[in-house]
Amino acid sequence: MLNIPRTIEWVDGKVRILNQLKLPHKIEYIETEDYRRVAKAIKDMEIRGAPAIGIAAAMGLALAVKNLKTEDLTEAFKVLDEASKLLASTRPTAVNLFWALERIRKRATKATTVDEVVRVVVDEALKIWREDEEVNRKMGEIGEKLLEDGDTVITVCNAGSLATGYYGTATAPIYAAVERGKSIKVIVMETRPYLQGARLTAFELSRAGIPVKVITDNSIGIVTLKEKVDIAFVGADRITRDGYLVNKIGTYLLALVCKERGIPFYPVAPTSTLDIKRGIEDVVIEKRPGEEVIYIYGRRITPESVDAIYYAFDITPPNLITGIITERGILYPPLHRAIKKLFFNRD
Amino acid sequence: MLNIPRTIEWVDGKVRILNQLKLPHKIEYIETEDYRRVAKAIKDMEIRGAPAIGIAAAMGLALAVKNLKTEDLTEAFKVLDEASKLLASTRPTAVNLFWALERIRKRATKATTVDEVVRVVVDEALKIWREDEEVNRKMGEIGEKLLEDGDTVITVCNAGSLATGYYGTATAPIYAAVERGKSIKVIVMETRPYLQGARLTAFELSRAGIPVKVITDNSIGIVTLKEKVDIAFVGADRITRDGYLVNKIGTYLLALVCKERGIPFYPVAPTSTLDIKRGIEDVVIEKRPGEEVIYIYGRRITPESVDAIYYAFDITPPNLITGIITERGILYPPLHRAIKKLFFNRD
Repeated sequence: MLNIPRTIEWVDGKVRILNQLKLPHKIEYIETEDYRRVAKAIKDMEIRGAPAIGIAAAMGLALAVKNLKTEDLTEAFKVLDEASKLLASTRPTAVNLFWALERIRKRATKATTVDEVVRVVVDEALKIWREDEEVNRKMGEIGEKLLEDGDTVITVCNAGSLATGYYGTATAPIYAAVERGKSIKVIVMETRPYLQGARLTAFELSRAGIPVKVITDNSIGIVTLKEKVDIAFVGADRITRDGYLVNKIGTYLLALVCKERGIPFYPVAPTSTLDIKRGIEDVVIEKRPGEEVIYIYGRRITPESVDAIYYAFDITPPNLITGIITERGILYPPLHRAIKKLFFNRD
Repeated sequence: MLNIPRTIEWVDGKVRILNQLKLPHKIEYIETEDYRRVAKAIKDMEIRGAPAIGIAAAMGLALAVKNLKTEDLTEAFKVLDEASKLLASTRPTAVNLFWALERIRKRATKATTVDEVVRVVVDEALKIWREDEEVNRKMGEIGEKLLEDGDTVITVCNAGSLATGYYGTATAPIYAAVERGKSIKVIVMETRPYLQGARLTAFELSRAGIPVKVITDNSIGIVTLKEKVDIAFVGADRITRDGYLVNKIGTYLLALVCKERGIPFYPVAPTSTLDIKRGIEDVVIEKRPGEEVIYIYGRRITPESVDAIYYAFDITPPNLITGIITERGILYPPLHRAIKKLFFNRD
């Protein structure tokens, strides 16, 4: 068994969160029965990664109702509502967060007793958690067939166990391959400005005993020329119906370099990431404050008068994508057709 | 007149070096008559940039002989030799450094009196300095014709005034265009691991009153998609006879993105950078210690057990280069032919 870190767990009616702000140097857990503490953990980014945030919010709701001292259903719904509002306010752009809260709310409103509310909310939260891991393991099983013994994988940011319920997305084929006895190495882009690659992906892979090296984001060209790099796996914040991948900055450059070098490039993305409603022209790429680039560990890297331009996400066009690994199989080009088929010809 | 910073000056028989280690937050000069202090400045990287290092070494020799207290020629040559050895030992891979030292030594050995040694060495050092600026200004004049009023230039690292005697290479067309009244903006890649773009290029351009913004190296894809970017100018550590550009990591990615987006990509490179003896297969790309990537401002970004792979330079193939701006005109593809013609059909 690999020692893959868990970023969130439900243990004996408590939520246990691995504090990602302390990584990679300190392993420190937040253990709480208070949903407000969970909300704070999301807000302060002690936990991050879209699926992980959704699970944390769901578990937050579970905590909120679990210790209800009332028999009054209206009162119970009021508590659920308050908790839901607080949890929703933590990361206003996190789609998974709203999705998880809404999914639980829908199930809970059908309850007719306080006991039922508690049971339904806790069950649904744990189900969301469990499903996430199942989907990741399924993608791992599918993706690991692309890996041969001795391969080196390149990746960006953290689309790992730390970003999900467990096992990760981009990391899933790696973990699955290693669990099946293959020897796999990983090269990870450090991923400025927040260095999730250097801090988080390097941490979780090395914990799991998988050899990993970090590179600066600007060195993927020379590294893929001079070192053995066999395949790229990346996460996905969203994939549009026309097959465009929206993911962390640096992803497009990696895809472009892979195309030049003949290295297969695969997003690993649960079907929940496929956005059948939107084409790429409907996606707004968030422009964030330059300060997030300019300060590293509190030190300003530019002169006082010079600001930065900071887009957090890249757009990777479908012609650079070899295939999309989902829990329902690999989608191959033409991607817009494969995505359409997946949604409308369900088997 | 633009207020372009000078990294090195010869003032009243002294050498004045702008301490680049203190930039961008402190403007601090080293003023010395001691060549040993100049050697230390090169070694400690208080001054960096290939042409600037060559000039510093030359001025170091000038200091060494200027205050000679002897009339004995053998003694004078001994001092010159010692100084030369110390200066040569500072940065063992800096080609310009050896070139400058050798150029001065050759001229000096013909001298028949100590006075002549002093005159020849000082003259030659100042000539090396002056020629560097002339070449840069000439490239600026040629390159600025590619710029239209209102253009935005993208660049990487620091191939600016701070890396040269004055005026820079990649920055030369920008300064020349602005001096001729054009309004030019610049976007500079921060350039991990040493952040020369964020620290140095941003500093010198903003000092000169030219609007400049910094971006993370991984965001050139989205920035060239979302922002107006008209042309790329980069420096060159070496251009091989087959037209391959060896320059700071990130250069290849920028060239690749420019090709995709239809943005012209020009190295600005004095003909002294063209290596007529070597093809790309003869060039060894230096692999440096991972520590240089892993520590930022003394803080480790990876777990203790995880190292980095660090190549400091990129290889950009000729098919991604629009043209090479030299002091003798712009070389256009096929580059191997243009380079050959330049060397063997001299006008």
